Amino acid sequence: MTKNSSNIMALSPNTSNKRETVCIFGTGDFGRALGLKMIQSGYPVVFGSRSTQTSSLIPKDAEVLSHAEAAQKAAIIIIALQRQHYNFLIPLAEVLHGKVLVDVSNNLKINQYPESNAEYLSQLLPGARVVKAFNTVSAWALQSGTLDASRQVFVCGDDMEAKQMVMDIVRAVGLTPLDKGSLLAAQEIENYPLQLFPMWKFPIFLSLGLTAFFFFYCLALDVIYPYVYQNKDFSFFIVISIPNRICPILALILLALVYLPGVLAAIIQLYRGTKYRRFPDWLDKWMLCRKQLGLVALAFASVHVLYTLVIPIRSYVRWRISSHTISQALNNKTEPLNTTNAWLSDSYVALGILGFFFFFLLGITSLPSVSNNVNWREFRFVQSKLGYLTLILCTAHTLVYGGKWFLNLSLYKWYLPHAYMLSLIVPCIVLVIKFVLIFPCLDKPLTQIRQGWERNPKYSE
Amino acid sequence: MTKNSSNIMALSPNTSNKRETVCIFGTGDFGRALGLKMIQSGYPVVFGSRSTQTSSLIPKDAEVLSHAEAAQKAAIIIIALQRQHYNFLIPLAEVLHGKVLVDVSNNLKINQYPESNAEYLSQLLPGARVVKAFNTVSAWALQSGTLDASRQVFVCGDDMEAKQMVMDIVRAVGLTPLDKGSLLAAQEIENYPLQLFPMWKFPIFLSLGLTAFFFFYCLALDVIYPYVYQNKDFSFFIVISIPNRICPILALILLALVYLPGVLAAIIQLYRGTKYRRFPDWLDKWMLCRKQLGLVALAFASVHVLYTLVIPIRSYVRWRISSHTISQALNNKTEPLNTTNAWLSDSYVALGILGFFFFFLLGITSLPSVSNNVNWREFRFVQSKLGYLTLILCTAHTLVYGGKWFLNLSLYKWYLPHAYMLSLIVPCIVLVIKFVLIFPCLDKPLTQIRQGWERNPKYSE
Amino acid sequence: MTKNSSNIMALSPNTSNKRETVCIFGTGDFGRALGLKMIQSGYPVVFGSRSTQTSSLIPKDAEVLSHAEAAQKAAIIIIALQRQHYNFLIPLAEVLHGKVLVDVSNNLKINQYPESNAEYLSQLLPGARVVKAFNTVSAWALQSGTLDASRQVFVCGDDMEAKQMVMDIVRAVGLTPLDKGSLLAAQEIENYPLQLFPMWKFPIFLSLGLTAFFFFYCLALDVIYPYVYQNKDFSFFIVISIPNRICPILALILLALVYLPGVLAAIIQLYRGTKYRRFPDWLDKWMLCRKQLGLVALAFASVHVLYTLVIPIRSYVRWRISSHTISQALNNKTEPLNTTNAWLSDSYVALGILGFFFFFLLGITSLPSVSNNVNWREFRFVQSKLGYLTLILCTAHTLVYGGKWFLNLSLYKWYLPHAYMLSLIVPCIVLVIKFVLIFPCLDKPLTQIRQGWERNPKYSE
Repeated sequence: MTKNSSNIMALSPNTSNKRETVCIFGTGDFGRALGLKMIQSGYPVVFGSRSTQTSSLIPKDAEVLSHAEAAQKAAIIIIALQRQHYNFLIPLAEVLHGKVLVDVSNNLKINQYPESNAEYLSQLLPGARVVKAFNTVSAWALQSGTLDASRQVFVCGDDMEAKQMVMDIVRAVGLTPLDKGSLLAAQEIENYPLQLFPMWKFPIFLSLGLTAFFFFYCLALDVIYPYVYQNKDFSFFIVISIPNRICPILALILLALVYLPGVLAAIIQLYRGTKYRRFPDWLDKWMLCRKQLGLVALAFASVHVLYTLVIPIRSYVRWRISSHTISQALNNKTEPLNTTNAWLSDSYVALGILGFFFFFLLGITSLPSVSNNVNWREFRFVQSKLGYLTLILCTAHTLVYGGKWFLNLSLYKWYLPHAYMLSLIVPCIVLVIKFVLIFPCLDKPLTQIRQGWERNPKYSE
Repeated sequence: MTKNSSNIMALSPNTSNKRETVCIFGTGDFGRALGLKMIQSGYPVVFGSRSTQTSSLIPKDAEVLSHAEAAQKAAIIIIALQRQHYNFLIPLAEVLHGKVLVDVSNNLKINQYPESNAEYLSQLLPGARVVKAFNTVSAWALQSGTLDASRQVFVCGDDMEAKQMVMDIVRAVGLTPLDKGSLLAAQEIENYPLQLFPMWKFPIFLSLGLTAFFFFYCLALDVIYPYVYQNKDFSFFIVISIPNRICPILALILLALVYLPGVLAAIIQLYRGTKYRRFPDWLDKWMLCRKQLGLVALAFASVHVLYTLVIPIRSYVRWRISSHTISQALNNKTEPLNTTNAWLSDSYVALGILGFFFFFLLGITSLPSVSNNVNWREFRFVQSKLGYLTLILCTAHTLVYGGKWFLNLSLYKWYLPHAYMLSLIVPCIVLVIKFVLIFPCLDKPLTQIRQGWERNPKYSE
Repeated sequence: MTKNSSNIMALSPNTSNKRETVCIFGTGDFGRALGLKMIQSGYPVVFGSRSTQTSSLIPKDAEVLSHAEAAQKAAIIIIALQRQHYNFLIPLAEVLHGKVLVDVSNNLKINQYPESNAEYLSQLLPGARVVKAFNTVSAWALQSGTLDASRQVFVCGDDMEAKQMVMDIVRAVGLTPLDKGSLLAAQEIENYPLQLFPMWKFPIFLSLGLTAFFFFYCLALDVIYPYVYQNKDFSFFIVISIPNRICPILALILLALVYLPGVLAAIIQLYRGTKYRRFPDWLDKWMLCRKQLGLVALAFASVHVLYTLVIPIRSYVRWRISSHTISQALNNKTEPLNTTNAWLSDSYVALGILGFFFFFLLGITSLPSVSNNVNWREFRFVQSKLGYLTLILCTAHTLVYGGKWFLNLSLYKWYLPHAYMLSLIVPCIVLVIKFVLIFPCLDKPLTQIRQGWERNPKYSE
């Protein structure tokens, strides 16, 4: 066994405690930062540079040589150059043959070039073993050592052994390597650090638009209307009262929009009689950002909860309650307890609390570390069963809250419905369709279709 | 080095950007979905089927051949068949010799067969290299691409190289492989997708039972008693008042049940004088679901907090306060500030807030991503020290809340104690035993026993 | 391919379902616990001991032999001895040659010895392949099976194949191996289980000190002052009112202290004209515990929120409001709505809610599983943009809350400023400096310096 393994050991980069020399091409900001970090981790570092003068900027213990000389000293060469300068490496092809070249470059735009920088490097120098790594870490972070953010370094490459050697360096400098497979993944890895919450854009812009609409709607009905007709100044409503109307409305609408694409997909599948045709593009995109929609809805619901709980602290509310009490006392009468009112008020509050509680549970299960610990069956149980329970509770909460206003026409200002009625449209549609889809005459074929059955095979692609 | 490594490279599945052909046995739902996904990821796919007609359902770019022909074209064969049909593979033993067979099958019940499907396949075809993978991913998820849930694919197998090849495919289709070791893990992997929160069953059923008991107990004392004797209709109490009594009671009892098995275990170890004998089965099971018990308790505590914070918004409470104020005003008297009352009310609320705060901290540390980042010493510090602090604060919160009622016999309806007194039994037992166990005369031998010392070695197994 | 791979397969520890024998040196607590666990996982276990009598404590199915005999039976030997006894192994050097030695030892103090135990073992027995593992798991946890905490086992070693074999054992006993690279990592791995929240010490002691200071400050102004001059007993303020003053003050100060080192660093970089000189040590340490400072601040903010929301439930507050209402009723007057007051009260509450909401978002993104899923650009966007937004909102919340008191000199007790004014000093300094640094005349050179430009290269090291 020892004999056999010695072969393997010769290939392993870490056979002794002595670290192997690493060469860095390029003395720019990132090259220097990485070089310093590697020297601190015990690696002898050699820089390859056009000018071989030791600049004051280069870490003290590092040697600076010409590209060719530096490359000969190391098995691993980190290419800390920009893509535009890669063709300078072609004359070095011979000396780089068989070496591990680590491409650390990033682009300025997503999909800037047809092929990734690492694949381009691999095409220029077919004899070298190219590994993509380190591009997701910033020079600033390496230098300052304050790696609060992700310590993950994505690594990909076609050569397993070269990848292992690079992953050992990643570990040695205190980061966590994550093997992303072959060099085909380089494009994705190069795009990764350029993204800024791509999945969140649609939910956030949608909710900003809806917020603006409902803000002006409520402003007109709750502030401008009483000012025009009753000459009352309720301008301070825009601080808490109106936000506390917008937040629950948006939470409810966005939550319903999480479940709408699901029922639309079911209708399309039932209509087509097959699951093997792609959904329209807009539906696919919608389905992919359901988690983000749900979390934005949860954020609105949370703010609504806080706004509601501070109601009794508000100076205006204290004044209103106290005025009401004083006027009763002055008129020498005591209102009896209105049991119906107590029922309605308590039900509405209790439904809201339960709805928020289950909503919060849904939010917790969408944390990556929690969802990684549940299997598919559990995840679908939570997202589907708990999700619809949440939607039902929140819709009921809104219905009970405003039930009395539906019928009372005198409360319609400017013949416009109250804002919360608008918020009920989408959730009611979703719940009605879902309710219809539960009937066996629709549920049975739908289940069959989802298991692969086709009503009309000629329709399939 | 380059020479040596070329050997290794020849074995590596990803030596060039060109993906190797993959064969799929079976054209069922899962086989087709996986095939489509692999074609999209750049793999040439060949289906092995009894009928070699290209069905309209099979992805366009895939070839359909007989089993033997298809198997010869690929090094990796995905067996997308049911276990019952595995014996159809025996005649192909020769052509499958040395091939990597990927078992993707699932069963309908946990531990349906004595050995796992993958081990069964390995026994049928001893010459093949069997790898278990992909069974935790659903065909639906693969097809729709909406992998919100876990992207983890558990992989196990006895052949390291075969496992690596399969893990590369897993990565290529956008999932995360997780090496679970040898084929012995297949049973566990096959059971995994069939589970539905197995550890949560006991805590949830226990809390449902306790909820039902306390609901009827409170209903009798708070709704039926005043209706019978005072003819008052407090039926609306079942919406908020009674749930807000049940939630804290359950939170406290379940929290105490988290710490009860620990003190029971200490007593058993002290009695036996050794730690080397197994605890009774019920105690072992109880200890394993402590985390879930604690989280259910936290859920009840959170709902209790919300129910408590909405108290001043409730229509009934507003009416009660306003009636009280009016009656004072009409009687022309002002009650002076009762400092004792202010002390009691504030202490009770402050203890509750601190208790909930530490309880919430405990909950956060049980998130998988947080508990993975603390070591054993830190985890025990949090769970034990913070846990008992939480239990003490919550018990004190309950004691201060109801202190005055213990002595006032006129408040006992139907000679039954108030529900919250029942809730104090378990936590007080736990705290008293724990307090006794802290005394040096018991703590010292216990520590010795836990370090491996035995009072009476003949008792040990 | 099959031919080539057979070579590799011979080296792989798991080529068949039959587990290989594992030898354990030492029959202490940890050795026995690990042995039992491995027997349960299907490994034949042999113990190496000075006395070869089978003690009743040793698991039944294990053999006990002399060290030399036991070592010959296995390829993997787990050294469950203390470092002081490692030199007993030197005479066995020959029989241990080529074997995989697993060092499981821990020390009593951090950095107790100049080199790690594993490296020391490796120096004593240069022919053996030493792997560090299992030291982060406690014997108690292995025995009881209640592994609620981290299941991660850090593994490091210079020999790749030996490391693989040990990682397979780790997986087999139900734990998760984590490759930490070469044996150089052993020191860190040995220190890990001895730590007790090292990064949290400074934030916690700082906040304890500040809490004590502000507690006595508020006690003097709010309890002692009215008792001395007005003979009023407000001692119950120390339960809720004073904590609810301390919590927001500490939250605001600690939050500002998270952003202060950043602006100090910017000033230092601007002054020096380079980023290539190290910051003073105290600044480096401060920057490294910013996350912990922020989380402690969030904890104080959360408790402040809870304390604020229970205000209307407090017996004292109810008495105050009711007295005020009664006195108005008795005087037969009704105060009109004070719109300015309503604006101020609502703004202050709304700013607090929004500030807390963004603070909470910041807290969520610092969860390890969330921060691992965002890239650098997203992380810096959240931490920097959202962070300053939070600081601005919270400072504004405090300013609006106490705005009226700044000018009203009669409210200054003992000529001391109100405590919340002290809390505004640090956040205002941070915000003013940050505002100044945004001006182009300072922002432009700062950006250049951070991209690697130097004003005066001679200054650099």
